Amino acid sequence: MRIGVLTGGGDCPGLNAVIRAVVRKGIKDYGYEFVGFRDGWRGPLEGDTMPLDRAAVRGILPRGGTILGSSRTNPIKIEGGVERIKDNLAGANIDALVAIGGEDTLGVARQLTDAGLPVVGVPKTIDNDLSATDYTFGFDTAVNIATEAIDRLHTTAESHHRALIVEVMGRHAGWIALHSGMAAGANVILIPERPFDINEVVAHVESRFETRYAPIIVVAEGAHPKEGQMELQTGEKDAFGHVRLGGIGQRLAEEVESRTGKEARSVVLGHVQRGGTPSAFDRVLATRLGVSAIEAVHDKDYGKMVALQGTEVRRVDLSAATDELKTVPAERYQEAEVFFG
Amino acid sequence: MRIGVLTGGGDCPGLNAVIRAVVRKGIKDYGYEFVGFRDGWRGPLEGDTMPLDRAAVRGILPRGGTILGSSRTNPIKIEGGVERIKDNLAGANIDALVAIGGEDTLGVARQLTDAGLPVVGVPKTIDNDLSATDYTFGFDTAVNIATEAIDRLHTTAESHHRALIVEVMGRHAGWIALHSGMAAGANVILIPERPFDINEVVAHVESRFETRYAPIIVVAEGAHPKEGQMELQTGEKDAFGHVRLGGIGQRLAEEVESRTGKEARSVVLGHVQRGGTPSAFDRVLATRLGVSAIEAVHDKDYGKMVALQGTEVRRVDLSAATDELKTVPAERYQEAEVFFG
Amino acid sequence: MRIGVLTGGGDCPGLNAVIRAVVRKGIKDYGYEFVGFRDGWRGPLEGDTMPLDRAAVRGILPRGGTILGSSRTNPIKIEGGVERIKDNLAGANIDALVAIGGEDTLGVARQLTDAGLPVVGVPKTIDNDLSATDYTFGFDTAVNIATEAIDRLHTTAESHHRALIVEVMGRHAGWIALHSGMAAGANVILIPERPFDINEVVAHVESRFETRYAPIIVVAEGAHPKEGQMELQTGEKDAFGHVRLGGIGQRLAEEVESRTGKEARSVVLGHVQRGGTPSAFDRVLATRLGVSAIEAVHDKDYGKMVALQGTEVRRVDLSAATDELKTVPAERYQEAEVFFG
Amino acid sequence: MRIGVLTGGGDCPGLNAVIRAVVRKGIKDYGYEFVGFRDGWRGPLEGDTMPLDRAAVRGILPRGGTILGSSRTNPIKIEGGVERIKDNLAGANIDALVAIGGEDTLGVARQLTDAGLPVVGVPKTIDNDLSATDYTFGFDTAVNIATEAIDRLHTTAESHHRALIVEVMGRHAGWIALHSGMAAGANVILIPERPFDINEVVAHVESRFETRYAPIIVVAEGAHPKEGQMELQTGEKDAFGHVRLGGIGQRLAEEVESRTGKEARSVVLGHVQRGGTPSAFDRVLATRLGVSAIEAVHDKDYGKMVALQGTEVRRVDLSAATDELKTVPAERYQEAEVFFG
Repeated sequence: MRIGVLTGGGDCPGLNAVIRAVVRKGIKDYGYEFVGFRDGWRGPLEGDTMPLDRAAVRGILPRGGTILGSSRTNPIKIEGGVERIKDNLAGANIDALVAIGGEDTLGVARQLTDAGLPVVGVPKTIDNDLSATDYTFGFDTAVNIATEAIDRLHTTAESHHRALIVEVMGRHAGWIALHSGMAAGANVILIPERPFDINEVVAHVESRFETRYAPIIVVAEGAHPKEGQMELQTGEKDAFGHVRLGGIGQRLAEEVESRTGKEARSVVLGHVQRGGTPSAFDRVLATRLGVSAIEAVHDKDYGKMVALQGTEVRRVDLSAATDELKTVPAERYQEAEVFFG
Repeated sequence: MRIGVLTGGGDCPGLNAVIRAVVRKGIKDYGYEFVGFRDGWRGPLEGDTMPLDRAAVRGILPRGGTILGSSRTNPIKIEGGVERIKDNLAGANIDALVAIGGEDTLGVARQLTDAGLPVVGVPKTIDNDLSATDYTFGFDTAVNIATEAIDRLHTTAESHHRALIVEVMGRHAGWIALHSGMAAGANVILIPERPFDINEVVAHVESRFETRYAPIIVVAEGAHPKEGQMELQTGEKDAFGHVRLGGIGQRLAEEVESRTGKEARSVVLGHVQRGGTPSAFDRVLATRLGVSAIEAVHDKDYGKMVALQGTEVRRVDLSAATDELKTVPAERYQEAEVFFG
Repeated sequence: MRIGVLTGGGDCPGLNAVIRAVVRKGIKDYGYEFVGFRDGWRGPLEGDTMPLDRAAVRGILPRGGTILGSSRTNPIKIEGGVERIKDNLAGANIDALVAIGGEDTLGVARQLTDAGLPVVGVPKTIDNDLSATDYTFGFDTAVNIATEAIDRLHTTAESHHRALIVEVMGRHAGWIALHSGMAAGANVILIPERPFDINEVVAHVESRFETRYAPIIVVAEGAHPKEGQMELQTGEKDAFGHVRLGGIGQRLAEEVESRTGKEARSVVLGHVQRGGTPSAFDRVLATRLGVSAIEAVHDKDYGKMVALQGTEVRRVDLSAATDELKTVPAERYQEAEVFFG
Repeated sequence: MRIGVLTGGGDCPGLNAVIRAVVRKGIKDYGYEFVGFRDGWRGPLEGDTMPLDRAAVRGILPRGGTILGSSRTNPIKIEGGVERIKDNLAGANIDALVAIGGEDTLGVARQLTDAGLPVVGVPKTIDNDLSATDYTFGFDTAVNIATEAIDRLHTTAESHHRALIVEVMGRHAGWIALHSGMAAGANVILIPERPFDINEVVAHVESRFETRYAPIIVVAEGAHPKEGQMELQTGEKDAFGHVRLGGIGQRLAEEVESRTGKEARSVVLGHVQRGGTPSAFDRVLATRLGVSAIEAVHDKDYGKMVALQGTEVRRVDLSAATDELKTVPAERYQEAEVFFG
């Protein structure tokens, strides 16, 4: 059998670990051949391939990024895209496809499955917001990076009697903010799932300033205040002419400063969270998912995604992963609130 | 209510995070008072206490070790030990006890529960070998430390065409070896659950030497060869007069060297694995367990241990955790074997 | 003798290591007593002190920040400030003062020396821009943090065929940019000492995109283009009514994107660079400077700053450190340019 | 011109950074061609080469180890070795040789220079014991690794009221022990340059046990007690038939335990200190040395070694580096002793 492999969407530590596991498992146990498609769905769409043998995956386990490249190309939105993929897969004698990606990539995988193509999905997102899996690889690494950064910021906050606002990734779900904020002892954590009351935030900041410690606020990039409390649009336009949203971290710093009369500074961790060597947890998870994906291929169990449930890796329908975003439930946020202020 | 807290057994990153969570949750939501008992069961046995208020737990979340101290004192094995603990708890007006520890500490907790004392257990072991919980805090940190060390050793092995044997913790269970070996791309992983065949190990080493990469063997301290294959006793006696077991890592290095004629070196990671700041995963887990332990106390649900199951923290009987060791199942080892050689 | 100690200016890893070394050395070898002044020059100005004995400095060696607090208070600019300090030092029976800080703090120390006060200075700045010392502590830590961040960004840049611009600290001197850019293999490094030509930057970016690697630009916050090449002012005003300078990193990303037609993203490392545990280099340097400062006090050699020269710690006049900023010399920049593009 | 490059001796973080800098500088500024010799002096001795162009050095800056491989082969000790090297260099049209290594490698370089060969040396040793250079790359990385390990061990020592002995590298010079011990707050540091008095060591341990902190001893592998104080030979023979020296760390632990009656444990950091990604300091130093070596080649200034002096890279005679070991001077040890006990 010849298996195609692709990685789509944003960078995520562990992608290379999956690719290596897929290739090593497939060669060793089933004698499969592998073909890499470059840059996500652009690869099968344009027939852009690269060799993917044991030598190609040597030494990549600890490396961030993806040797296959990635993109956000969506073949569904391209006229005749699905047909071109079918033709290119047939032309390259591909018997099955392993698609590693997040909501968008797996959504395409699901539609291709519906169109009759043999696809197995591997879930990936540093945001941890995919349903049907307990965790996605990349998330643990991102949380570790954010936690280390917040650890560092504590001493500066204390030494200068300053509030520090740390903006972390999470456009639609607050998992990184929740976990890194809890791990690093943030005084307030703000997540997209729950519009915040700026008065409560300020009250926590002020009560914290009464100790000799200084407040740290961890805010997900997608968090926002209750209706009408703060203006987020800056009026400026970016290079593409879109109205720029004021970064929530920077806006919060301004707001806290003007309301408390104390210095506040913001730090936006940005892309540092999504690159570089994966944590041990993510390497093990990525490796196990890769092994399991090949077992699904071997069983011709297509239209499935491999997923972590407890300590087991299981198969679920691709639809289970892509129907609904996994957001932070209220009780997890309440658990974190114990440590606010 | 007045709650006593103690930590027993070996050092483990996350102990302080549990203590802080217990104290912060208890004060904030229920107005409890806390008393720290020093050095595990020695504290209640001798009535040795320390204050444990909000100030005492400030800043300890990211710190390794335990502000309460620890020991391996076992009151069950001491004549009248249980009675003395009862008397000391009564004398200090303690209404409930939170005991944080591994198999031994929780075993005592269970027996004290049987004797009528109100105890809630929090599971702790870097070895991850406690049943009824998916993971114990400290384990993720230990695996990260071991993985980083093995990452470093790869380049030395390659540059010098040498085999490197890395001995990690795990006397009865091979979890640290399995996860760090898988995460760091070890060529062979040896665990206590499965006596190894030295001939197979040597075969993997030799096949690896044929590439330009060099073999890395990760071995749990409790791993051992099949009956009669290697001599492990050195004949020497240690300071306490016990016959010293040759460290398995060092013995393997000698054996590999003499059988392959290639250089082999061993590194014993030792106590470095169990100290210092916990990983983000362990801090979140430890914090959630601490919160949950106080909820169990509040519900007067004694004789229970809080445990991680999937993404949820639940309560289980202390007996469920202490009846049986959680060892590496055969299918997890087979999954790792894909990458041997 | 009773010695006062203060820390002024921005946070810097190693401050606590100096404080500890000063106190331990003074107590052990000379039986000195110590008094901590809080928040830089505000402490002696307002007579705000804290105890500083051996217990107070226990465990602080590896911690970022400063247990004494810091501020940018400048007593020279306050009517009667110098007199009040004199009075407060006399009132507290202070025989000598150890002032740990950067250009501003040491500038005050120098003027107080001229006014007859017994002061010894210890140089501190993560920017490494103080003259008369080879390095200042904090710099090595900042460079390590920036280097690790850039290491992580490499994989994202590659996987997404994107340019990444990393803005690091350095308002007047480009040392952090030079060293972290050189250490992490940046394709262009931009520093305040040398106005850049945006056309050259774009040419490097484009030539890099021709390989399968992607360009990383490291830019010091104080770097700026040649006269008339890019608009840096945004027109907005900040919370204090100052016209906001567009962050150079973000502006460069926009410029690179519009000129090359390829995606470019910026990351501003910010305060993460100046907090947290110091590197080993900085701990050793800070400790040696602290020991040496006490020896200067013991010799009553006031008006001096302790400085690293080669592998030796020596004393220099405070004026030598504060007369002129130490900027990146042309030949060091040329050395880095070998690796551009 | 065609330049040969080789790396000899033990693994050391930064070797690849030198190789990359040599190749990039030589190609960019002078249009040189490069040839890699494999495994130290074995390469030129046996004419074993590999291509070394710009593609070969891509991405290796942050990687530990050496892409050229290394060995301890000494051609001087081989009958006709020098002549064979001359012939092989001539046969491969090599105009100059850049030899990267420690005392042994540079000693050979010096003798080949005396025999008329055009060699430039680059100093390398994690032990930092080469004369004529302030620091060698690899040392800073090793010290950081050891310091992080000791940081971790502190909490275990405290929680268990145990003495911990950490054995670090340094057979003939105590630089790693001195710097990591000072950086991590060791209570005693033992180095080869100064035979220790076991009674003093025990006194420090006992005085430390009186605080709530626990003693950490950092000992260089080459440290030894004063004449007749402790037995170091074990009587055992290793795989090569040499009488095995008891590891000093383990022996000290036994001695401390039996003399104080308190638990003591040893940790041997071993090869972990010499592998993996170099620190930023080492990457910058290695890169600058590589650039400077090519400038020496360009100037046909053979028989020289490039060296760090203060913040400058300069050329010195190879003899200056190899005539004498750079050991820890008495005053540096006294500076560290301030913090003992």
